[in-house]
Amino acid sequence: MTSDKIVNGVNVDQLFGAVELFKEKPDLAKFKFRARNTWRDGTHSQATVKDFYGPGQEDNSREATVFELDEPPVLLGNNLGMNPVEYLLVALSGCLTTALIAHASAKGIAIKGVQSRYEGDIDLRGFLGIAPDVKVGYEEIRVYFTIEADISEAEKEELVKKAQQYSPVFNTIFQATPVAVHLEKS
Amino acid sequence: MTSDKIVNGVNVDQLFGAVELFKEKPDLAKFKFRARNTWRDGTHSQATVKDFYGPGQEDNSREATVFELDEPPVLLGNNLGMNPVEYLLVALSGCLTTALIAHASAKGIAIKGVQSRYEGDIDLRGFLGIAPDVKVGYEEIRVYFTIEADISEAEKEELVKKAQQYSPVFNTIFQATPVAVHLEKS
Repeated sequence: MTSDKIVNGVNVDQLFGAVELFKEKPDLAKFKFRARNTWRDGTHSQATVKDFYGPGQEDNSREATVFELDEPPVLLGNNLGMNPVEYLLVALSGCLTTALIAHASAKGIAIKGVQSRYEGDIDLRGFLGIAPDVKVGYEEIRVYFTIEADISEAEKEELVKKAQQYSPVFNTIFQATPVAVHLEKS
Repeated sequence: MTSDKIVNGVNVDQLFGAVELFKEKPDLAKFKFRARNTWRDGTHSQATVKDFYGPGQEDNSREATVFELDEPPVLLGNNLGMNPVEYLLVALSGCLTTALIAHASAKGIAIKGVQSRYEGDIDLRGFLGIAPDVKVGYEEIRVYFTIEADISEAEKEELVKKAQQYSPVFNTIFQATPVAVHLEKS
């Protein structure tokens, strides 16, 4: 019986094991993630996440989690949940953080703390269709990281760079991603 | 005293009021949304959403909401929350739904129900840095809408098209969006 190497709470032996497995069997690296949404009323909807596909099989083992989405009253809602563009920042925050930690762990760098803050600019004239030259999505998102670790500023900068390079959510946003929207025939 | 026109739970008078206001005073349409993230351990982090900016002022009136982000055990986590790429689908789901409902309401179309499901493909060889030609983010996201309303299929298709055209999260993902990541000096 051997003990796995754990760095920053990440099982590094399992991480390198996945690297070797996916090099040998690339199909096992192909995951599918999912969500469902039901409109409730006005700007309020509920999204549910449960199952996913990978590695090589359906995974239904998790309990479902329901997320409430709404707008504040100034945006026609009733504050029954945070709004969709805020959920996007939540997604980005978790992904950059995990990518940073995974990379540091693989390198054997001990991390004491990571905090980050996110701010994105939206000009609502885009959403309202009253200014065709205005972007409908975020015009820019700014991220600020604080890293506590006994490493140099240059090494911290390198971790922030790797987080961007390997974060799926960052790259989904930063590079254009195809989204195919269909209407189910009724 | 007059009553506002409400369609699908959306105050249409307030919606058209915002259109007129933002046409007259474009600066009031410029919102900033925010999140903060604190790394907990391994792949687990917590994101908090509370304040935002707009219209023309800071808004601190909402209670903070904390979101748990983690990975399932096959992805080195402990299921302490859904994962970041799943939160991205949640964000997309709420945004497309709200854009669809807002547009239908503005047109006076009564909607009985809207459901949608989301699936995105990720090849984890990108995240793990073992296949430089593989995308790190979602390769594709597919969305399937079901709309219950007494309108034609063509009108439903038009609503699905408008949802894409005016959804901020859809457009943040579908078009490349600048994300500037900084390290705070320690």
